[in-house]
Amino acid sequence: MSVESIVQSTRIVLASRPDGVPTTDNFRLEAVNLPDPADGQVLIRIIYLSLDPYMRGRMSSAESYADPVEIGEVMVGGTVGQVIDSRHPGFESGDYVLAYAGWQSHAVVDGKLLRKLAPAAAPLSTAVGVLGMPGFTAYSGLLKIGQPREGETVVVAAASGPVGSAVGQIAKLKGARAVGIAGGPEKCAYLLDELGFDAAVDHKAPDFAEQLGAAVPDGIDVYFENVGGAVAAAVLPLLKLYARVPVCGLIAQYNDSTAPEGPDRLPGFFSRVLVKSLTIRGFIQGEFVSEMYEDFLRDVSGWIKEGRFEYREDFVDGIENAPTAFIGLLQGKNFGKMLVRVAEEG
Amino acid sequence: MSVESIVQSTRIVLASRPDGVPTTDNFRLEAVNLPDPADGQVLIRIIYLSLDPYMRGRMSSAESYADPVEIGEVMVGGTVGQVIDSRHPGFESGDYVLAYAGWQSHAVVDGKLLRKLAPAAAPLSTAVGVLGMPGFTAYSGLLKIGQPREGETVVVAAASGPVGSAVGQIAKLKGARAVGIAGGPEKCAYLLDELGFDAAVDHKAPDFAEQLGAAVPDGIDVYFENVGGAVAAAVLPLLKLYARVPVCGLIAQYNDSTAPEGPDRLPGFFSRVLVKSLTIRGFIQGEFVSEMYEDFLRDVSGWIKEGRFEYREDFVDGIENAPTAFIGLLQGKNFGKMLVRVAEEG
Repeated sequence: MSVESIVQSTRIVLASRPDGVPTTDNFRLEAVNLPDPADGQVLIRIIYLSLDPYMRGRMSSAESYADPVEIGEVMVGGTVGQVIDSRHPGFESGDYVLAYAGWQSHAVVDGKLLRKLAPAAAPLSTAVGVLGMPGFTAYSGLLKIGQPREGETVVVAAASGPVGSAVGQIAKLKGARAVGIAGGPEKCAYLLDELGFDAAVDHKAPDFAEQLGAAVPDGIDVYFENVGGAVAAAVLPLLKLYARVPVCGLIAQYNDSTAPEGPDRLPGFFSRVLVKSLTIRGFIQGEFVSEMYEDFLRDVSGWIKEGRFEYREDFVDGIENAPTAFIGLLQGKNFGKMLVRVAEEG
Repeated sequence: MSVESIVQSTRIVLASRPDGVPTTDNFRLEAVNLPDPADGQVLIRIIYLSLDPYMRGRMSSAESYADPVEIGEVMVGGTVGQVIDSRHPGFESGDYVLAYAGWQSHAVVDGKLLRKLAPAAAPLSTAVGVLGMPGFTAYSGLLKIGQPREGETVVVAAASGPVGSAVGQIAKLKGARAVGIAGGPEKCAYLLDELGFDAAVDHKAPDFAEQLGAAVPDGIDVYFENVGGAVAAAVLPLLKLYARVPVCGLIAQYNDSTAPEGPDRLPGFFSRVLVKSLTIRGFIQGEFVSEMYEDFLRDVSGWIKEGRFEYREDFVDGIENAPTAFIGLLQGKNFGKMLVRVAEEG
C-alpha cells in the first residue's frame, strides 16, 4: 500500500502576519517532501481548495474562535482531494474526500477527519461550497437564528457570494422577501435575474443608504451579517421590532488593526437593541452541525436537483495563485464561491 | 355610586424636555378637577407611585418603544391605588388595585386596565416592585434570554435595585453563581449579607475593572444589562463563549444627547459577538407577560413566603417630591425599589 517514490507537496505557508491589508509578501510558496502515511492516515492529492474570508482571521494573532496559523505553517483551508495511498480501512486509492488540508497540493491526513464524497451525487467542488461550510453557514444561521417568517424581509450582503446567495434563496424558499447587497451592477443583476432576489442594492452606489431604505419600505426583519462596516451602518437603523441579526462574518473590518475614529457608536447601538428588542447573535457553523447538518444536505441538494437553487463558482488555477485570489476575495473581486483548482479531477 | 363633591388630583406634569440630566424645572406641580367616572370607569386614590429608570425615556421625544409623554401631560407610571368610586362591575369602593395611573394623587381610569390586589397576600407596594414590573423584568429576561445553567456565572449591575436584586437571587435559586455590581460599600455589603450574592463589586472603586475580573475568574456566562456605560465596557471583554446578554435598560446613558467621542467601539464589539458567539437581546417585559407572568407570580411569591427571596424598598413621602426622587434615582441615590408614598394605605 505504500508508494514507491517520495511525494512532494507544493504549499503556501504564512510568511509573516499582515498589518492591515494582506499582501503577497505575507505568503511563501514552498515544496516539502511528505512522509509515508502512518497507520490510520491517508495520502491525498488536492483538487480544490476553498478560499474563504475567515482565513484572514487565521493570519492574525488576535484572539479568535480558532487558533492562528503560526508563521511558517501551511495556511489552513477546506479542500476536496483524492486518495492516492491509504492506511485507513475506510478509504482506498481513488476515493474522493473532503479534508481540511490547507493550501497545498498533497497532504497526509488522519482518515478519521475525512468525509468520503460521491462524485455522482453532486459536483465535487460543491463539497466546499453550496453543499459545504459556506452553504451550511447560510442554512444554519438563517433558519436557527434568523428564523424568517413568511412575508418578512431578509437582507444579506455579499449576496452573490456563497453564503449570501444561499441566505437569499433559502429566505425565498421559506416565503420571505429577499433583498441582496452586492458590489456593482453585474452582481446585482445576477441576484435579480439568476437567484430570484426581490431587490438588489449596489453598495458602491453613492446613494447606497437611500437605495437600501427604498428597497425595504417596511423595514428589515432579518439582517444576515457577514460584512460589517458601512453596509452594517446603513442597515442598523432599518431594523424592525424583534429583528434578528445572525453574525457570521465581518469581512469589511478584518483588515482593521485599530478601532476607527469616533464618534463612539456603541452606546447608540445598544439603545437600538433596547428600543427595538433586537437579537444579535454571533455564530460559527460548527455549533449547529450535529443538530442540522443532515437536514441541510437533504434540503439544499434537493432544491438544487429540483432546479430551485442556484450557485456560482469562481475558479483560479494553481496553488501558487491562491494568495492573489485570496487578497482579491477580501476586496470583493470574486464573483461567486472562490476556489483554487489545484489539480484536475480525473 | 357617584361622589358628592368634586375630586381634585394633585399631579406632576412634564413642563419641558430635559437636555441631558433632568432637573426639577422639567416638572410642574398642578391641581386639576377630575370628572366623574363614566360607565366602565373607576375613580381611585393613589397610594404608591413607582419610580423607574424607563421614565427618563418617556421625557424625551427620541424614538423609543413607547410614545413620549407630551409637554403638559401627567408623567406616566405604575401605581397602587384604592377605589373610591366605581362604575365598573368588577370593582367596588375600598378595593385595592394596580393601575398605570401616573404621577398624581387621584385618577379616573378604565376598569379593564386595572388588576385587583389582595392586600393579605403580599404588601401592596410589592405590586409595583418585586411582584410587579421590575420583578418580572428580572424573571423573564434572566430565564427566557439569559438561561443560566447550574454553575454558570451571572453578572448584574444596579444589583441592589429591584431588577438587579431579583436577577441575582433568581440566578442563585437556579444554581448559578451571582456577581453583583453596585455603587458604594453599603450596597455591596447588602448584596453579600442580605441577598446571598457570591461576590459584589463597587463600580465607584478606582480599580473597578480589575475587581470585576477577579470576581469572575472563569468569565461571564450571562450579563444582565440594565446600565450600559462604563460598567458594560468592563463587562464585555469578560464574556465567555456563548454568553447571553439580555438588555432591559441603559440607565448610565439615558441622559446622553449625542454620541460620545471616539474611538468607535462598535466594530470591536461586533468582533467580540462573532469570536465568542455572543447573544445580545433587547427586551421589554411586556413581550413575555402572556407566556410567563403566572409562573413569575407563583415562583417569586412562593420564594418570598419560604424566606428564600429578599427585597428592599426606598420610600419618599408626597407626590410633590417625586421629581427630586426620580432625579436621584437616575444618579443611583436610592437604595432598593424607589417608591413615592402618595397617601397612607388605610
